[in-house]
Amino acid sequence: MAKVNPRTLSGFMELLPAQQMKMERMMQLLRESYALYGFTPLDTPVIESAEVLLAKGGGETEKQIYRFQKGDSDLALRFDLTVPLAKYVAAHCAELSFPFRRYQIGKVYRGERAQRGRFREFYQADIDVIGDGKLDILNEAEIPAVIYSTFTKLGLTKFRIRVNNRKLLNGFYRMNGMQEKAGEIMRTVDKLDKIGPEKVKLLLIDEVKMLPCKAENVLDFMAIRGTNAEVLEALERYRGMDEVFDQGLEELNTVTKYLQDFGVPEENFAVDLTIARGLDYYTGTVYETEMTEHPEIGSVCSGGRYDNLAEYYTDRQLPGVGISIGLTRLFYVLGEQGLLSDEIVTAPCDALVLPMTEELGFAVSAATALRRAGVRTQLYAEKKKFKAKMSYADKIGVPFAVFIGEDEVKEGLLSVKDMQTGEQVKLAPDEAAALISARVAEKNAGSVIRE
Amino acid sequence: MAKVNPRTLSGFMELLPAQQMKMERMMQLLRESYALYGFTPLDTPVIESAEVLLAKGGGETEKQIYRFQKGDSDLALRFDLTVPLAKYVAAHCAELSFPFRRYQIGKVYRGERAQRGRFREFYQADIDVIGDGKLDILNEAEIPAVIYSTFTKLGLTKFRIRVNNRKLLNGFYRMNGMQEKAGEIMRTVDKLDKIGPEKVKLLLIDEVKMLPCKAENVLDFMAIRGTNAEVLEALERYRGMDEVFDQGLEELNTVTKYLQDFGVPEENFAVDLTIARGLDYYTGTVYETEMTEHPEIGSVCSGGRYDNLAEYYTDRQLPGVGISIGLTRLFYVLGEQGLLSDEIVTAPCDALVLPMTEELGFAVSAATALRRAGVRTQLYAEKKKFKAKMSYADKIGVPFAVFIGEDEVKEGLLSVKDMQTGEQVKLAPDEAAALISARVAEKNAGSVIRE
Repeated sequence: MAKVNPRTLSGFMELLPAQQMKMERMMQLLRESYALYGFTPLDTPVIESAEVLLAKGGGETEKQIYRFQKGDSDLALRFDLTVPLAKYVAAHCAELSFPFRRYQIGKVYRGERAQRGRFREFYQADIDVIGDGKLDILNEAEIPAVIYSTFTKLGLTKFRIRVNNRKLLNGFYRMNGMQEKAGEIMRTVDKLDKIGPEKVKLLLIDEVKMLPCKAENVLDFMAIRGTNAEVLEALERYRGMDEVFDQGLEELNTVTKYLQDFGVPEENFAVDLTIARGLDYYTGTVYETEMTEHPEIGSVCSGGRYDNLAEYYTDRQLPGVGISIGLTRLFYVLGEQGLLSDEIVTAPCDALVLPMTEELGFAVSAATALRRAGVRTQLYAEKKKFKAKMSYADKIGVPFAVFIGEDEVKEGLLSVKDMQTGEQVKLAPDEAAALISARVAEKNAGSVIRE
Repeated sequence: MAKVNPRTLSGFMELLPAQQMKMERMMQLLRESYALYGFTPLDTPVIESAEVLLAKGGGETEKQIYRFQKGDSDLALRFDLTVPLAKYVAAHCAELSFPFRRYQIGKVYRGERAQRGRFREFYQADIDVIGDGKLDILNEAEIPAVIYSTFTKLGLTKFRIRVNNRKLLNGFYRMNGMQEKAGEIMRTVDKLDKIGPEKVKLLLIDEVKMLPCKAENVLDFMAIRGTNAEVLEALERYRGMDEVFDQGLEELNTVTKYLQDFGVPEENFAVDLTIARGLDYYTGTVYETEMTEHPEIGSVCSGGRYDNLAEYYTDRQLPGVGISIGLTRLFYVLGEQGLLSDEIVTAPCDALVLPMTEELGFAVSAATALRRAGVRTQLYAEKKKFKAKMSYADKIGVPFAVFIGEDEVKEGLLSVKDMQTGEQVKLAPDEAAALISARVAEKNAGSVIRE
């Protein structure tokens, strides 16, 4: 029979078992971390009506989207988790309680040009808080606390949540009479990290057509650095000139103040006037998160405050604040950087039961006892030579092999071998379970990310 | 602005938060249960090349599939998790260790006719054990143990795993010279439950064109009932007439024998000669699982042994055994039957912190302390009247409200109200966390399914 090549499409991540275990562990930690902050899990369809998904329409999105007909229906695959959230909240408004706090970890689809490290199917892990009409500023201070707690649990320590406020920026541009050019200026200023202030200044003058003194104003503003207290202090000198600016400053002060109560250490959090996060969507606090020793990776968690989640679907004013982790890309770059730990157990099981007898009753009972005690157990029943069995145990990286020969059956005991140390002991099933559980818990106490 | 109707496509399940929590709990229990038996989690793309997905081709599948072009690529959405597994194993053969045991819980797509309780996007939760060339019969005995353990954890007790063996059936038809008609006969016999033996006999004679005595032979065979020991005993009288039958009987005896060692009680397991599970795929043990008080639901978990997983992709012989739970449908019918428990906590959080003061520092610290102690906590910062806050607490069904007024701030204490009993106590944050954790653990000790 002619065979079909079993290929996986390019741009689609498909992991081998050990890597998949690390990914699963990251997802489980995200679920737990988000739940701890009172976010409820949500699941929405991958396929939506194209009309619904493209209600906002336009731009890059439309080019990248997977869109197709099925019968009479014009369908598309979701390209983010925000549009489905907007649809969900608009559709179920009457049945939800506000503020509505949800997390969603799911696959999204973008037909990007195939390229190493770029994915067409990838997981996003989002949280959002949606208010009905209003939403208190405290929520904007809480979001970085969730980011901090989540990344810390994953094992990251060297990261910085950069926070800014769009009202502060908009107010600043307004007080300088530059509000018309705000978008262009922000896009240019975005290059500060890459090309430095001198070149940005030239671009502002030559391309954005700004007066040199105004370009300098912008660069002076963006050059404000220091501790959070110092930055906030430096911003005081602009107070009183524009009411939107003043409001933004007030919000930034509030967010910074409460962040300490939320337990976010100063070193993981920086007021940073250079970040802006796009243009038309965010209206208040904005966030980016960088790994301080790997700035080349870019932001691993971004988001912000918006005023109107679902304007394409409903007249109801639904302000919100949220963040998104591009999980597939994060996992990929962590792997590339060698930052995924090999310490945690990635084998399919903690104990591999290897019967050496014809009759398997005792081996089955032993495996059942281990499982009842919570030990992930595989029973290897294939008729292979001892060497082949041990080679299998090595290959899957199982922490413990459990031998059951005629002696063990007679004595009702298990010979338990620690595959790492080579130590072997004979134990009753419950003792074996206790030993294996304790040792595996130790191994798994480590983090999935090691820096 | 003209609004787009925020509709969800028909045939796509989208749950409200409390229901979603139950679904998540079921998925988490499945993950844990499958892992306990040494299955490793796998994740494969939702989109595959149409050529790969349709390698086997033909029939209903091709009509129902979501298939579309993107650029030059002919793509399709997976319609089950078995074909992607076959592709995965064939593609990564060299990097996998056999037996390869994987579980996968993921969405699959079938463009079925829209109908109540029929889904176009639905979760399957599969486990499979794949051998390289050979696979021991013990694996076929282990599968019902996984089903038993999984359903028991979900809270089901009234279910029966029905087991048969295709070799036994094929052998039986062969010894009666009916092997040519085996397919037709099995499809007819499948109606026994619905139309009874008399009508099945007429169909066998009139439509399958069998001699009355042979039709009676079939019905006599299918009428074998009793305890597992009795059924196996009754089958002995056919022994020695066909070697395939004898092999099937041997396997069925082995599976039944080891099931006891695997801890599956006799009442949850029945040798049942009437089940066959389709025709061309399964080659040994086959399984169906019925809820004994809801036979109308049909099988909630089915599967079996097959000889060749990936023949369309590779020459390598890859026998396996697996089962699949149609999770979305199971969840739907459990809901319809009123079998989903309302006892477990479905609120987004365990504690809702309600500050009654302007300054929120202590409330934030309190919420942070509760979270550090593992209590899922929401901080409600919206400026609303007390009544509105309590109504929110009621609506989300939170187990505990935590009030923080000026007294509490002064004393450093939290007023903790059990929303179910109405009891209210003032406690230090760590005491509050202990109380809430203990009470919530009690509530969550219940099962997600109640019979």
